[in-house]
Amino acid sequence: MTSSSEIEGEPILSFFETKTFKKKEILQEEDKRCLLYFFVVKGCLRLYFTDQNGVEQTQQLALENWWMTDLNAFRSGRKSAYTIQALEATEVLAITAPNYELILAKFPVIESYFRLIYERAYAASLLRIQMISRMPKDEFYELFQSKYPEFIQRIPQKVLASFLGFTPEYLSELRKNLVKGKNNS
Amino acid sequence: MTSSSEIEGEPILSFFETKTFKKKEILQEEDKRCLLYFFVVKGCLRLYFTDQNGVEQTQQLALENWWMTDLNAFRSGRKSAYTIQALEATEVLAITAPNYELILAKFPVIESYFRLIYERAYAASLLRIQMISRMPKDEFYELFQSKYPEFIQRIPQKVLASFLGFTPEYLSELRKNLVKGKNNS
Repeated sequence: MTSSSEIEGEPILSFFETKTFKKKEILQEEDKRCLLYFFVVKGCLRLYFTDQNGVEQTQQLALENWWMTDLNAFRSGRKSAYTIQALEATEVLAITAPNYELILAKFPVIESYFRLIYERAYAASLLRIQMISRMPKDEFYELFQSKYPEFIQRIPQKVLASFLGFTPEYLSELRKNLVKGKNNS
Repeated sequence: MTSSSEIEGEPILSFFETKTFKKKEILQEEDKRCLLYFFVVKGCLRLYFTDQNGVEQTQQLALENWWMTDLNAFRSGRKSAYTIQALEATEVLAITAPNYELILAKFPVIESYFRLIYERAYAASLLRIQMISRMPKDEFYELFQSKYPEFIQRIPQKVLASFLGFTPEYLSELRKNLVKGKNNS
């Protein structure tokens, strides 16, 4: 006898390929065709571009159970506007665009799952724009810290600063002041 | 005999209420519970907050066939962080959160529809962040103009400037220079 998760899980998993990457290894290069959508099983990814001054600007982070790709490029078959890099030793499930279409059409549960994933991601991205534009930077950081403590622990300071739109110096100063504030209260 | 769109269409529409609003009328007030999700049948909506200096900051625009609400507040039952206002005489279909859950569960076609809507909206919001952070402002405006010509024609200049993150003076200057550039070429 097999459990229902095996009956349902096996055919879905057969559309994916398991891939492993070392720390700092590149999963997707900027300006190369974006053929894969990654689901993080273990580890951590970042998505970034290099600006006119040669500085890497991190736009997205993904920990376990998060999805990552250049969604615009993946869905249109165009070249990626970003590089995707492993920040830790990382294991992913990778799916191609045709297989992504197939599982959406074949498994209603996957359609519902992605509706919910994108609904949350879209709402979160609106919240991010709102936080950036209307909150003082220190409040924004404290809210971010309380919502995503794992990011603070696992993401290198320089990458985190870029993701938050801070300079590394400002983030370092902010963290020092927050520690001081706690010790005084 | 009824067509398949009537058979399928009628029960879905029965979950919505049609509402009409005059130009400048408010559909959702900031800090009031966010109970409705709006689909624009005819007209135009904007979503904004008022910043510390009393300036209205437009975050989203919706023309015909677009959806608008404070998604975070609507899904969680919390108070809206934004005001929603009609920029023209507007007709909407409005749905409550329980009815939204019902149509998603009841009609697989609606689940697929919203998966696609949110996937595109999420991808567009990432592109917006990318455009804001890596493009010179004039290039960003020209791209925006070519992608959304209706916005340029229908949205008041002041609202559009706020949505793009420009001052009204900068937008006015930019438009003048673009017209000059065209006449010279």
